[in-house]
Amino acid sequence: MAAYEQLVDRFARLASLNGAAAMLHWDAAAMMPRGGADARAEQLATLSLVSHEMLCAPEVADLLVAAEGEQVRQVRQAHLGPWEQANLREMARIRAHATALPADLVNALSRAGSACEMVWRMARADDDFATLCPHLEEVIALVRQAAQAKAEAFGCTPYDALLSEYEPGLTAAAVDRHFDALADFLPNLLDNALSRQPAPPPAPERMSAALQESLSRQLLDMLGFDFEHGRLDVSMHPFTGGISDDVRLTTRYDEADPLGSLYPALHEGGHGMYERGLPGTWRGQPVGGAMGMAIHESQSLLVEMQVCRGDDFLGYLAPLLRNVGGVSGPGWEGEGLSRRVRHVARSLIRVEADEVTYPLHIIHRYRLERAMLSGDLKVADLPGAWRDGMANLLGIDVANDRDGCMQDIHWMDGAVGYFPTYTLGAMAAAQIYRAADAALPNLSDDLARGDFGPLMAWLQKNVHSQGRLHATADDLLIAATGSPLDGGIFRRHLEKRYAEG
Amino acid sequence: MAAYEQLVDRFARLASLNGAAAMLHWDAAAMMPRGGADARAEQLATLSLVSHEMLCAPEVADLLVAAEGEQVRQVRQAHLGPWEQANLREMARIRAHATALPADLVNALSRAGSACEMVWRMARADDDFATLCPHLEEVIALVRQAAQAKAEAFGCTPYDALLSEYEPGLTAAAVDRHFDALADFLPNLLDNALSRQPAPPPAPERMSAALQESLSRQLLDMLGFDFEHGRLDVSMHPFTGGISDDVRLTTRYDEADPLGSLYPALHEGGHGMYERGLPGTWRGQPVGGAMGMAIHESQSLLVEMQVCRGDDFLGYLAPLLRNVGGVSGPGWEGEGLSRRVRHVARSLIRVEADEVTYPLHIIHRYRLERAMLSGDLKVADLPGAWRDGMANLLGIDVANDRDGCMQDIHWMDGAVGYFPTYTLGAMAAAQIYRAADAALPNLSDDLARGDFGPLMAWLQKNVHSQGRLHATADDLLIAATGSPLDGGIFRRHLEKRYAEG
Repeated sequence: MAAYEQLVDRFARLASLNGAAAMLHWDAAAMMPRGGADARAEQLATLSLVSHEMLCAPEVADLLVAAEGEQVRQVRQAHLGPWEQANLREMARIRAHATALPADLVNALSRAGSACEMVWRMARADDDFATLCPHLEEVIALVRQAAQAKAEAFGCTPYDALLSEYEPGLTAAAVDRHFDALADFLPNLLDNALSRQPAPPPAPERMSAALQESLSRQLLDMLGFDFEHGRLDVSMHPFTGGISDDVRLTTRYDEADPLGSLYPALHEGGHGMYERGLPGTWRGQPVGGAMGMAIHESQSLLVEMQVCRGDDFLGYLAPLLRNVGGVSGPGWEGEGLSRRVRHVARSLIRVEADEVTYPLHIIHRYRLERAMLSGDLKVADLPGAWRDGMANLLGIDVANDRDGCMQDIHWMDGAVGYFPTYTLGAMAAAQIYRAADAALPNLSDDLARGDFGPLMAWLQKNVHSQGRLHATADDLLIAATGSPLDGGIFRRHLEKRYAEG
Repeated sequence: MAAYEQLVDRFARLASLNGAAAMLHWDAAAMMPRGGADARAEQLATLSLVSHEMLCAPEVADLLVAAEGEQVRQVRQAHLGPWEQANLREMARIRAHATALPADLVNALSRAGSACEMVWRMARADDDFATLCPHLEEVIALVRQAAQAKAEAFGCTPYDALLSEYEPGLTAAAVDRHFDALADFLPNLLDNALSRQPAPPPAPERMSAALQESLSRQLLDMLGFDFEHGRLDVSMHPFTGGISDDVRLTTRYDEADPLGSLYPALHEGGHGMYERGLPGTWRGQPVGGAMGMAIHESQSLLVEMQVCRGDDFLGYLAPLLRNVGGVSGPGWEGEGLSRRVRHVARSLIRVEADEVTYPLHIIHRYRLERAMLSGDLKVADLPGAWRDGMANLLGIDVANDRDGCMQDIHWMDGAVGYFPTYTLGAMAAAQIYRAADAALPNLSDDLARGDFGPLMAWLQKNVHSQGRLHATADDLLIAATGSPLDGGIFRRHLEKRYAEG
């Protein structure tokens, strides 16, 4: 067997182990009773160790070298196409990330992350940062070690090494450029939006969880989500888990806030359509995976923000709320409904933030995680730094750590370098949506009828089916939209929606 | 680190992988959308290959030899107790089962089993044995190879080698002895029971699935099942999955047949109490596992058959059905209810059979699987042999293969040697229950009040907490009841319940 085929076999095996871990992560959030947590942490730590061992096996290095040689010959003979070449590139990338870390650090990170997450669940409920602090300190110390090891292996800065786990090729210099422009732009826009928007509509009537679920399923059907290859369940924080052939979406139901379940369902549905739409021919191979977390987020935000908070779609949603959800009145249709789904507010919680203030929450976390990584900010000083940042960026007082620096799971699990992708994803969503809109002359009418077919077909062709063929998100954006990530399009979208008309 | 401690680490890692596989098996039956089946089969095959590799690593053999040496020294110095010694014995046993099979056979068995199971689900619905046949032939051919390889490694017959996977130390000679006595005894008892029992009571009213679920949960609470370490869900066939710290029970709800959900829930609850009650100190170690499938089944049948179809418990169940389930009338209390839960019938389907005819279904399967393993029976001839056996043993005509040789999943998955443990478990249940009854003078009153505390405490002490300390089920039975498996106690139980009074 040629070296390349042997690598394909090994990475397929690895994908099965990662797929098993993905299902167990989903189960932990959506199904697992509390008493199963310790055993689950052991299962996940063991799976990550086994994966790490497989990737680091010396034979993989030999096979990569041999396959490179085959590649040179076969490209010349036109036997090896661009997908195979990209697959080899991604195999080498994944292996480089694995071999940069010794097995005991992988193990320590997995265990410290699980332990910290468990402590965090209790400590957050009790607003008790002191109890969390030593656990988070341990996680951050291990992340710093890992970042340092990767920086040395890759010849880059420690933070860039972490960024590149979530978004290949992304650097802090690029993030700075995008975020500086936003930080300049958003405060004025926010003031403007706040001063223009009318008082929020009166609190509308309740909707039962059963009706919210039924509506959520109907909206996912509308997107084209395939329930033969996926599920919708409940978890504390909505997310998309599982694998491309078995996509597990979650949302949550609050009877007093039906839009707070429907929009998360639409958001996760966007993620789910991307996962499911990844190229079937390349299932289980690195090149068949999602481009990166920014493009992933662009697909959820394109559905949730670009489309489903726009007036075209609201014209379709309102009768659905009335006829299926059984709610009516001024807060459920026309102007009242648009005001509610596009309401802007300075608020404490990222996951509940509107699209104008959301990037400020992200810039805030980006600055803090960089400072923690460099050592400029001690974990023990995080609560104070959080308060200062929220006051500066959002002009809001943080009353407690539960609604402050303890609100997110990411750092607890050692995910440093992930936050920026949310806002890069929001930018990419605006850019991709504009390109789709230009290509689909009837898009507005389609969406007003709840017909997502043409939009999804365009996304499938230009984004989903591309997997990881391109080396970076910018390359994918150039192919799909004609230019690399252009934050101006997102800013223009915000201006148009929140400061004009 | 001493060799024994190194083995403890390795087997803990193995237990985590097996635990991950157990959760994925549960998910496949209770949660997974149909489209996830191929990827799941890959995940499970990969996990079983990785486990197999870990067990077969030459270092494990070296460690076992070194630990044996330590054992001799430390037993002399009283440093190594009976649990550690039993743990070493079980480690060696598990490794012997693994090393007897080459990796490609393990892989082929896993894949052929998954493929056959998928074909079976469709073919059974269509009553299409011809489509199933080549797949089942492949599975049986691989099982015969595996049995032969193990027979050579262990110096026993191929069928005994398979039996010992599910029940350590069990031989076909022992099964024959027990089953011959039953095959002599049951036909007369069955005629007697059928002639004595009154006509079945009229079909009673329906109960909603929601009420059945609520009642099932209440009954599991009554058993002492810990929902902080477990769940109750729905699957086509009720089963108990997961791990000791996260026990996943399933049942099913048919509004026309509420007892058909409550008794499976009680049955699985008995399995669940055993799993959960295994010794916490030895979690993840071989000695901390269940004794074998016969003892496992004894714990479910003790609850379902010995206790919950007896008059004491029915006195507690009847008001519950009325007050919680909202059903009433002659079929839901007193004589009518006992007649329903103890109704005996010659029937086609094993999982719906009563406790008198159930062993005949098992003896039937035992004879057929031995004949398939020896080569005396070809898979292609299975439908005819099935009809003959059902006519001989149960006096019943089999109209189609769906309700005949295609009804069970076991052979599809390559589980040959498993069926006998169901009936050995029924025997052990009668024997263990008699010992508990002798030890607990107020048991009858306790059960009539729905108080399972004293019974479960006795089982916990004498069965659950013993894990795999004993080398065989007979050794455990001697310790718990004073004698090895004694089929006479089960036969006496059946006589008393179905042929007297």
